[in-house]
Amino acid sequence: MRKPSGADPKKRKGLIIVNTGDGKGKSTAAFGLAMRAAGNKMNVFILQFMKGQWKAGERKSFEKLAPYVEVVPMGDGFTWDTENIEQDKATARKAFEIVKEKLNSGKYNMVIFEEINYVLHYKFLPEDEVLEVIKNKPEMTHVVCTGRNASEKLIEMADLVTEMKMIKHPFKEQGIPAQKGIEF
Amino acid sequence: MRKPSGADPKKRKGLIIVNTGDGKGKSTAAFGLAMRAAGNKMNVFILQFMKGQWKAGERKSFEKLAPYVEVVPMGDGFTWDTENIEQDKATARKAFEIVKEKLNSGKYNMVIFEEINYVLHYKFLPEDEVLEVIKNKPEMTHVVCTGRNASEKLIEMADLVTEMKMIKHPFKEQGIPAQKGIEF
Repeated sequence: MRKPSGADPKKRKGLIIVNTGDGKGKSTAAFGLAMRAAGNKMNVFILQFMKGQWKAGERKSFEKLAPYVEVVPMGDGFTWDTENIEQDKATARKAFEIVKEKLNSGKYNMVIFEEINYVLHYKFLPEDEVLEVIKNKPEMTHVVCTGRNASEKLIEMADLVTEMKMIKHPFKEQGIPAQKGIEF
Repeated sequence: MRKPSGADPKKRKGLIIVNTGDGKGKSTAAFGLAMRAAGNKMNVFILQFMKGQWKAGERKSFEKLAPYVEVVPMGDGFTWDTENIEQDKATARKAFEIVKEKLNSGKYNMVIFEEINYVLHYKFLPEDEVLEVIKNKPEMTHVVCTGRNASEKLIEMADLVTEMKMIKHPFKEQGIPAQKGIEF
C-alpha cells in the first residue's frame, strides 16, 4: 500500500501543483507527470502559453502517448509580440479560454497550464480570474501550473509547490550551446 | 537558431545533469528528459537504484516509447534489505555494473542513474569509483543523476545542477493520500 500514515483516503482529490523557480525541470517535470498519467490511462490536456517552447522531441513523444495526452498545437496564429501588449493580452486570452473550457469539461484527469506563471507575472491575464478558474476546477482533476515567479496567491492556493532552483547551468557558465534532447 | 549568445558550438557535449533536493520532480523531470530525448530518436537507458520506485504509469509510457527508452526491470531478484548492509551493497554493485556497461557501450545518448544519490549517500557504493565512471563517460552521452543529498563532488563535476525544493507538500501537511498519476 502506498498510503502514508495519517493519510485519509476520503481526502483523495485532484491537486493543484505548482513548479516554479529559476532552475531547469519545471516543464520537464510537468511533462513527466503527463507521461506517468498517460501510462495510467488518464486523460491529460496541455496548453503551452509561451511561444517557441514546444519542442519537437516532446511533441513526437506525446503523439505516441495519444489518445491520453492532448496538446494545443501552438501555430503561427498564436504568436506573442512583446512590442504590442494588447495583442499579447488577446493571445493570452484566447489560450486561456481554450484551457478553461477543457478544464471545465471534466474530461481530463490532468490539465497543464504550461508557463501560466509567466503570463500572470506580465499581467497578460487578470490573476484573480485565472486563479478563480483553477480554484473551481472539477474536484478530481489535477491542475499543474509551471513557470518562474509563481504568484503568492497561487502558492497559497496550491497543494503541492516545488521550487526548481538553479545551482549550476552549463549554457550560462561554460558557453555550451543548447543540446538536443536536453533543451529541445 | 537556439544558440544562446556567446555559446560555442564546438563545445557541444554530453552533459552531466543532477536533480537533487527534498522536493518533488527530481525523477519526474529525469523521465521528462527521457521522453523528450526519445521523441528525438535518441536512445535512453534508465537504471533505477531504489526498489519499489518503479511506477506502473511510467513503465507503460516507456513501453510506448520503445525502442528508444530501455529500462532495467527491477524484479524480486533486485531487492534492498536495510537489515543487511552487505546484501544492499551487493545489490547496488550488481545494478552499478549493469549501468556502467550500458554507459560505456556508447549505444545510448542518455543514461539515467535514477536515485544514485541515495546509494552514494548511504555508501552502498564507493563514491570515487562511481564518479570516475561518470566522468569518463562517452563524450556525447548525457548522464542524469537523481536523488536527494547529491554529494559535493558530484555537484562539482556536473554541468547542470537543479535543486528541487519542497515549498508545500499535501501528503505531509493535509493528510492527503498519494494520488494515481501524480505519485505512481
